[in-house]
Amino acid sequence: MSPVQARALFREGTVSPTAGWVSGYTQANLIAVPRDWAFDVLLFCQRNPKPCPVLDVTDPGSTATVLAPGADLSTDFPRYRVWRDGELAEETTRVDWGEDLVGFLIGCSFTFESGLAADGIPLRHWEQGRNVAMYVTDRECRPAGRLHGPMVVSMRPIPAAQVERAIEISGRMPAVHGAPVHVGDPAELGIENLDKPDFGEALDFRDGDVPVFWGCGVTPQAALMASRPPFAITHAPGHMFVTDVEDGEYRV
Amino acid sequence: MSPVQARALFREGTVSPTAGWVSGYTQANLIAVPRDWAFDVLLFCQRNPKPCPVLDVTDPGSTATVLAPGADLSTDFPRYRVWRDGELAEETTRVDWGEDLVGFLIGCSFTFESGLAADGIPLRHWEQGRNVAMYVTDRECRPAGRLHGPMVVSMRPIPAAQVERAIEISGRMPAVHGAPVHVGDPAELGIENLDKPDFGEALDFRDGDVPVFWGCGVTPQAALMASRPPFAITHAPGHMFVTDVEDGEYRV
Repeated sequence: MSPVQARALFREGTVSPTAGWVSGYTQANLIAVPRDWAFDVLLFCQRNPKPCPVLDVTDPGSTATVLAPGADLSTDFPRYRVWRDGELAEETTRVDWGEDLVGFLIGCSFTFESGLAADGIPLRHWEQGRNVAMYVTDRECRPAGRLHGPMVVSMRPIPAAQVERAIEISGRMPAVHGAPVHVGDPAELGIENLDKPDFGEALDFRDGDVPVFWGCGVTPQAALMASRPPFAITHAPGHMFVTDVEDGEYRV
Repeated sequence: MSPVQARALFREGTVSPTAGWVSGYTQANLIAVPRDWAFDVLLFCQRNPKPCPVLDVTDPGSTATVLAPGADLSTDFPRYRVWRDGELAEETTRVDWGEDLVGFLIGCSFTFESGLAADGIPLRHWEQGRNVAMYVTDRECRPAGRLHGPMVVSMRPIPAAQVERAIEISGRMPAVHGAPVHVGDPAELGIENLDKPDFGEALDFRDGDVPVFWGCGVTPQAALMASRPPFAITHAPGHMFVTDVEDGEYRV
């Protein structure tokens, strides 16, 4: 299946998490806010590039993106979340974008996972058929205007002998979270219990696995919840935008 | 000399181009605009990361930066340019920053030059004691709101056998322009005569040298001249901000 075909299915109403869809093409997170909040969001991302790497920003009111010519950001995600005053108002399969909305497409760890897998690094959440485990940390992001919030991380158990290689491979993809923010002790990030992720699913460790933590694209959603703009749209977790850009494009 | 000492000299009135100052520490370009223009500038940079890699953005009215705690962006450059309606109004050694101004510190090719030199790649402008050659190209940057303009490039003659290595070394530093935008024929960028640069100085080629073109931090100044915001401050060409960040920090 091509990215165009996948987006057409989602546009016509198919609802599915996108992990494993159209392998080799970059997927993206969405956060869309009114024009008045757009500078704060863009600056928040600039100041926190590991959890919030910006791949593209729309013009106000536009649902077009250079990452996928012909796509429509208001219909081509499989599932959206609509936020009012920082509270989740509804989940839906298409959204009323409006004249004033600015959309941000944020890099996603799916992109570097294909690089890890290609190098023979096992991905336990793939093996276990689960969503990756995500945790709210005690590290505050650098605030920007009215926008503030904690850094959210994703965690993958990696065999100790392959951690260095995982750091190297992901580190060469700074546009999709880059190198890990921490390796080893969850308590260093204020995470008390790896078995209780804040998003996604807990993962089983094999002997010799070490927890490796990367900045996570859910961070902007945590900032929305903390900062309460009057209106926002995001993708529903795991229900990403499939772009026309090949993963390798984001390798430095 | 330390970065702190260099900034103190500039604050006290020393005026000098900063090439070669405090070797090993990253220097930065400045563009500062009223808050109302800040989103357009930040978005322009996000959409044109090769010529305009953002290292830091100030809060409105603030002259502080995380790149150099204790520094003052309104006094610590050796020389500034003040722009009104897109025209150069004056050059000065300190500026009245005002409550409404947002400052952008943009990566500078000095940072990857030290990496090239360390690898034994000759830098002809160093050998010839000249400023690097810069050219306005016929490639339009991706516009952002009211901001538009051509891409400006810097050009270095590189021995053909070392071009690949120069691409690799600079490519691993995407925060300071990254890999070249073009190697070889100047006409591909709409440059008619390498002997007539638009900024800086013409450089002599040695036998076997190939022209290599990188995105240039003068691009935002060209966008100011084309887009005419009511007010802006930039550094004077070659008179950069010396940060506390070591060059190696920007290597991926």
